[in-house]
Amino acid sequence: MLPLAGRPSTTVIKCRAAIAWEPNSPLVIEEIEVAPPQGGEIRIKIVTSSLCHTDLYHLFEAKDKQGFPTVLGHEGAGVVESVGPGVTDFKPVWRMQILQVSKNKPVRPQLPILQFASTGTFSEYIVMNQIAVAKIHDDAPLDRVCLLGCGIATGYGAAVNTAGVTPGSVCAVFGLGAVGLAAVMGCKNAGASRIFAVDINEQKFEKAKVFGATDFLNPKAYNKPISEVLAEMTNGGVDFSLECVGNTEVMRSALESCVKGWGVSVMVGYTDADFSAKPIQLISGKTWKGTLLGGKPAVS
Amino acid sequence: MLPLAGRPSTTVIKCRAAIAWEPNSPLVIEEIEVAPPQGGEIRIKIVTSSLCHTDLYHLFEAKDKQGFPTVLGHEGAGVVESVGPGVTDFKPVWRMQILQVSKNKPVRPQLPILQFASTGTFSEYIVMNQIAVAKIHDDAPLDRVCLLGCGIATGYGAAVNTAGVTPGSVCAVFGLGAVGLAAVMGCKNAGASRIFAVDINEQKFEKAKVFGATDFLNPKAYNKPISEVLAEMTNGGVDFSLECVGNTEVMRSALESCVKGWGVSVMVGYTDADFSAKPIQLISGKTWKGTLLGGKPAVS
Repeated sequence: MLPLAGRPSTTVIKCRAAIAWEPNSPLVIEEIEVAPPQGGEIRIKIVTSSLCHTDLYHLFEAKDKQGFPTVLGHEGAGVVESVGPGVTDFKPVWRMQILQVSKNKPVRPQLPILQFASTGTFSEYIVMNQIAVAKIHDDAPLDRVCLLGCGIATGYGAAVNTAGVTPGSVCAVFGLGAVGLAAVMGCKNAGASRIFAVDINEQKFEKAKVFGATDFLNPKAYNKPISEVLAEMTNGGVDFSLECVGNTEVMRSALESCVKGWGVSVMVGYTDADFSAKPIQLISGKTWKGTLLGGKPAVS
Repeated sequence: MLPLAGRPSTTVIKCRAAIAWEPNSPLVIEEIEVAPPQGGEIRIKIVTSSLCHTDLYHLFEAKDKQGFPTVLGHEGAGVVESVGPGVTDFKPVWRMQILQVSKNKPVRPQLPILQFASTGTFSEYIVMNQIAVAKIHDDAPLDRVCLLGCGIATGYGAAVNTAGVTPGSVCAVFGLGAVGLAAVMGCKNAGASRIFAVDINEQKFEKAKVFGATDFLNPKAYNKPISEVLAEMTNGGVDFSLECVGNTEVMRSALESCVKGWGVSVMVGYTDADFSAKPIQLISGKTWKGTLLGGKPAVS
């Protein structure tokens, strides 16, 4: 039995959680104690949790070996088990979707087990600040809605908030996983007139079309850089490009695919490697941005 | 005698120009013919011309060997010699400052001698479009005003137009040549509350102070990255940074010196080398931009 959050507790819940004790190690399911919610907090019974590459990244790829031991998982859905003092907007048994508040920020740095991304949904119960959860409809399917807090918000927000896609604009989304598909959706809802869906796996094109993509490009089908293909198809380049892969070559390609003068490229995918490009890319009037959790993050 | 612009001419002026026949070669002073101004054009007698690193870059450093033979020089001042049809805003003998309209764009691509940056002020006479010149005061000293069209506009505009420096913000300018000093001036006029002047040559600090800098940093005086020094001095980093050197390591440092969440770094200097950084720099909410000729360029 390990304290998950270690708050002064009167009604501790004992439950199981999958703990990542150290980098590159298997998760270990152990019994932990989850403290009662304090002021402004909510204790949630997690019903479903999905797996994001960021969980794997933290466990296996990150060069920064801090942030252990931790309960991974940051895409969850469940019901309110209890609320702390001052919480008036949430009631027990309401169904909740977990949002994120920051990236790998320990809620209580001095405690032995952290909540990854201030969440830690690979636990049967978690305590969250009330600003980091959202009420959902009674009919919302928990096994699907759990995806919304991270990947969908990230991709959709990258288009709408960070890139600021404008009506009538031409967009390109590189990488058609959940994040990329959500970016396509964001471009469409922002009124883009043309949305290029770019992926080396053509099987993803059908789904991208459902979300609003209008053109489909497999870079491997061309014997020249995809940025040149896009420039030819768009009279100079796209207004907005979104990199949803986490690959530095794709990041470069996404920037190069933008039109000179006003093109904006947004880095949505993540990697530790250096990205690079020629200065003329920016000096010609392009802007390079990045996004985290949909572009409205609490920066830690 | 070589045609500079080769237009159908009735009153050709024969004059001297310094011609760059090919990359890495000395300039050769030869007699050329300058055609009369056509519709919307002005023929100017150049009185003074300054030398910009971009001239040297084109001649000695650029990997792109196009754009020869050419008359270099793009910072000039002089008087109007004659005007073409439809030009009503300019009269002969008015004193003019040369502005630029694009970078290394041949006015008549098929002609043997180009006007570098659509200007070519290393000639006694040049023909320019009327939108690319500005009237100046009768008392304006031509040997100084010739600097304004390129370096000063570039640095000042980088701060005011491209970065969009806001009142009360904290800024850092890397490199204190003419462009950097103009960037300092732009930051000050935009209302920045604190302007860090960064250069490895401390002799430049006195002049930077005249233009509005409030703090002075020599990166070589610290045993840690200047971005860390700035982060400590500004509670996280500067709101706006401007790279006025043209060095990829300085570009990286300027980005890293920005505050997470909303910091904006502008690349003003130019080089052919790849710049690079970690994706987290942008994903944490920073924006990387570039600027050309003050941020309102006609992109070619």
